[in-house]
Amino acid sequence: MYRSHTCGELRASNINSEVTLAGWVQRSRDKGFMIWVDLRDRYGITQLIFDEERTPRDIMDKAKQLGREFVIQIKGNVIERESKNSNMPTGDIEILVTGLTILNEALLPPFTIEDETDGGEDIRMKYRYLDIRRNPVKESLMFRHKVAMEVRNYLSKEGFVEVETPYLIKSTPEGARDFVVPSRMNEGQFYALPQSPQTFKQLLMVGGMDKYFQIVKCFRDEDLRADRQPEFTQIDCEMAFVEQEDILNAFEGMTRHLLKELKGVEVGAFPRMLYDDAMRLYGNDKPDIRFGMQFGELNEVAQNKDFKVFNTAALVVGIAIPGANSYTRKEIDKLIDWVKRPQVGALGMVYVRCNEDGSFKSSVDKFYDQDDLAKWAEVTGAKAGDLICVLSGETHKVRAQLSALRMEMAERLGLRKPGEFAPLWVIDFPLLEWDEDTERYHAMHHPFTSPKPGQIELLATNPGEVKANAYDLVLNGNEIGGGSIRIHDKETQALMFDYLGFTPEEAKAQFGFLMDAFQYGAPPHGGLAFGFDRLVAILGGQETIRDFIAFPKNNSGRDVMIDAPAPIDEEQLDELNLKLNLS
Amino acid sequence: MYRSHTCGELRASNINSEVTLAGWVQRSRDKGFMIWVDLRDRYGITQLIFDEERTPRDIMDKAKQLGREFVIQIKGNVIERESKNSNMPTGDIEILVTGLTILNEALLPPFTIEDETDGGEDIRMKYRYLDIRRNPVKESLMFRHKVAMEVRNYLSKEGFVEVETPYLIKSTPEGARDFVVPSRMNEGQFYALPQSPQTFKQLLMVGGMDKYFQIVKCFRDEDLRADRQPEFTQIDCEMAFVEQEDILNAFEGMTRHLLKELKGVEVGAFPRMLYDDAMRLYGNDKPDIRFGMQFGELNEVAQNKDFKVFNTAALVVGIAIPGANSYTRKEIDKLIDWVKRPQVGALGMVYVRCNEDGSFKSSVDKFYDQDDLAKWAEVTGAKAGDLICVLSGETHKVRAQLSALRMEMAERLGLRKPGEFAPLWVIDFPLLEWDEDTERYHAMHHPFTSPKPGQIELLATNPGEVKANAYDLVLNGNEIGGGSIRIHDKETQALMFDYLGFTPEEAKAQFGFLMDAFQYGAPPHGGLAFGFDRLVAILGGQETIRDFIAFPKNNSGRDVMIDAPAPIDEEQLDELNLKLNLS
Repeated sequence: MYRSHTCGELRASNINSEVTLAGWVQRSRDKGFMIWVDLRDRYGITQLIFDEERTPRDIMDKAKQLGREFVIQIKGNVIERESKNSNMPTGDIEILVTGLTILNEALLPPFTIEDETDGGEDIRMKYRYLDIRRNPVKESLMFRHKVAMEVRNYLSKEGFVEVETPYLIKSTPEGARDFVVPSRMNEGQFYALPQSPQTFKQLLMVGGMDKYFQIVKCFRDEDLRADRQPEFTQIDCEMAFVEQEDILNAFEGMTRHLLKELKGVEVGAFPRMLYDDAMRLYGNDKPDIRFGMQFGELNEVAQNKDFKVFNTAALVVGIAIPGANSYTRKEIDKLIDWVKRPQVGALGMVYVRCNEDGSFKSSVDKFYDQDDLAKWAEVTGAKAGDLICVLSGETHKVRAQLSALRMEMAERLGLRKPGEFAPLWVIDFPLLEWDEDTERYHAMHHPFTSPKPGQIELLATNPGEVKANAYDLVLNGNEIGGGSIRIHDKETQALMFDYLGFTPEEAKAQFGFLMDAFQYGAPPHGGLAFGFDRLVAILGGQETIRDFIAFPKNNSGRDVMIDAPAPIDEEQLDELNLKLNLS
Repeated sequence: MYRSHTCGELRASNINSEVTLAGWVQRSRDKGFMIWVDLRDRYGITQLIFDEERTPRDIMDKAKQLGREFVIQIKGNVIERESKNSNMPTGDIEILVTGLTILNEALLPPFTIEDETDGGEDIRMKYRYLDIRRNPVKESLMFRHKVAMEVRNYLSKEGFVEVETPYLIKSTPEGARDFVVPSRMNEGQFYALPQSPQTFKQLLMVGGMDKYFQIVKCFRDEDLRADRQPEFTQIDCEMAFVEQEDILNAFEGMTRHLLKELKGVEVGAFPRMLYDDAMRLYGNDKPDIRFGMQFGELNEVAQNKDFKVFNTAALVVGIAIPGANSYTRKEIDKLIDWVKRPQVGALGMVYVRCNEDGSFKSSVDKFYDQDDLAKWAEVTGAKAGDLICVLSGETHKVRAQLSALRMEMAERLGLRKPGEFAPLWVIDFPLLEWDEDTERYHAMHHPFTSPKPGQIELLATNPGEVKANAYDLVLNGNEIGGGSIRIHDKETQALMFDYLGFTPEEAKAQFGFLMDAFQYGAPPHGGLAFGFDRLVAILGGQETIRDFIAFPKNNSGRDVMIDAPAPIDEEQLDELNLKLNLS
């Protein structure tokens, strides 16, 4: 062992002991007659001291050569510090060095290894092994481990069994694009990497495994949006002989446990909100309910006046922004510009100032009198001092636009507090959603989701109206988990595939094994999956997942550190019976 | 919830309660006026009773339709059984059924869902979801989960952090063949699936993570031998600022913990054996030391007589098989046939009977007298009643042959006891091994393994003699783990790549990021990896891993249940810029 102690553990009680430490040179200050070195390892920083009077000359000389990030081992005596540093756990002591070995030299790192580094995202990713030395990244990774341990121990105690499902599976055209893996031994054939272990966990239920979970890597070959990774981690769960209520309770319990153990936060029963209500009140199926600003639908009170824009809109909807009547005209103009950005896409915005004296001043005073505006205030819950912002247009689009504005204003007003946790179940999702590109309905969740009892007949006449036994767990405006009760009989599953445009032959080729399995005694079952990267990030008080992943890929799916993907040998391609077909 | 209790929990103390159970029909016995049904779930079996006098007619009728593996839900009252069954935990009670719902019907399963099934390997794999309902498979999977939990909790308590490393990495020509994954977004380029997280865990050490572990899937595209899987699971570990001794102690501790917690077996300090000694005494680098039969090298006492076969052999070596003097001539002939099978490959076998009266009778009495044979007995440790078996030939081959015979005889003699655990460290492995095909040295462990201190110069003159800081953990004749102290400086690593036949350009292209990392302050480090599938199987008292994997692949790398791999769409190939190049 290269050390008797770590760099984080020595205290005043260790004074006069002889110790051996090893670690990295964080910084060194050379006053000529005296040199101080901060020695760092995973556990902390300990100050080393070399001084002309007490340190042998050769060691003193060697200490002068130490550069940042050199790896060294030292022997020395723990002594009391003259000027103690109460900001560091080891701040009462320092080590008077009696022996120094340089274990490895280091080039000057391309960015500073400090909590606040001077390195940009790109350089930090290229040298991720140096980035990991920084406290914020190191602690994020250790926090991730802690969350995983809590999840596993909790679920295990609740009787769940972690079962490893295969990574080399079969490609299915439904859903996102698969990564595929050519098979050398089966010429012309490919495995696919799983987008989720969905069918396998259902088969485990058919196999009687009853309560399954797995923390597992999943893969999606999608064009990457910011903060999406081609490989990501799920907490994947499934239960048999349960109804939706049982699943919500089980995983509400787990989430509550995590909040308590990891954040010290006690949360009561999670509120539940219908998908339709979430869309109506927040314009969003994953509302952040840490703050209000619920939508007020204004069609009734704002239409049928002379304002054409509203009269022709499918939906007129507003929110009251607390205290924003203090905004200057210029600030409001900037806000209007903000909602008109292509990322938001509104054509314009109507606003109403709610003055302290109870009067209103709007951008549409020509069309609406004080009584009209008072009704708007009532519907949006605006109080004196607020600013009502109103958008109009096609229902789906205008809701998304106003939701973006609501989130932006909450951010600006500091209402999205990282230490506050507001979980929420959103339930009764639609079974299907219309896809503009392919002009057909797709499964909103996936094709194994069960429609609400008694609604399956609606599929023939009004498919968009059919609700599913599907639910999402939302935390602070982020979907952290989602799932459903599954279909567990062959007939319903065949019907679903039919509605989704599979021919019976396609259904059989893709999912024949599942439909076969349903014939041999499939129990009622359901489950959900948590996005583990996001869950960890949110519990860690952040919204970007990248620092919670040890070796993330960039937006082109590249690992810039190892420089992957990369070309492979002709020979490898030949063995796989493949040829490049470059454009 | 579909049930108030599981099928494994009701006892005499529950008599008179009303319960709801759900599960599968294991079997039903219809006596006309009375029907018994064994209801099974993950937790056990509970007997249901329907009887003409006490059960409503409609339920009675429905019960008569129940087939094997139907999924049902029942309500009923717990009553005392007339004839108790002390072999089952629920054997004191039965349920008088008052309500019966058929949740799902079932076709007759293609094999019996019993501990001893009538289904062969192939059919069980095709219907693996039914196979998992059988106790032996279900319990193996649950045992696997338990082992994983013990490993994680133990290592976590010891300060190890589980870090997820990426699955989409870069192909390297060294070692086994990679599975590759074409990148759609990076035309003509490929990811590779990791054969192990080797370089990433080393980078985590450079990153200061200090104590890392991960239970992780790894991939190797090899022609599959029996009991090998293209995807397999490792417990991957690495530590910084350690020497070999520290790593052996850390993972001896973990293994001892597993044996104690999972098997109730207390094991003392693990013996350590030099690789050279293991080869000399057992002909094998993973000796099963639950039993003796050590090799005796007979060159000195058997050569330079008139027996040409021995005189021209590089090695003459024998073992004493306890009590095997009782073998008839015919049995011995069969044994000789056994060692001459192509799988073993010996050209013949000399034997010596050790008679109870102290005399010897050998198959080479023409060349050796009683004094000669007494020396053979001494060297092989043979006692009266034993049979000495002697093979000769090229050292490496003859050792492998005699090792095979030793294991076979131990199996036949019942010396490989499943409940007995004999762990062993084999240390000081050679750094390189000669590869007949490519006619060059390959890294025996991998190219990052550090040679023993002071031996690196030997590489130039006598590479085969260089020993490494490399070690294997052997349990009952199986390698369950292996690892090494790594090179941690750029110069040595460059030298190693050079000796292994990499040009500097190749080394840079493949491992440039690692050699770069070594320049920025790499600490001394080392680690090991356990083969988790095998470890679980051995702890579970078995030698085949397949029942400890939920969804294994067959020897052609196929998942016969989901029928993967499979052809993919033209469109998918086009997107990946690939063409099939079928032979």
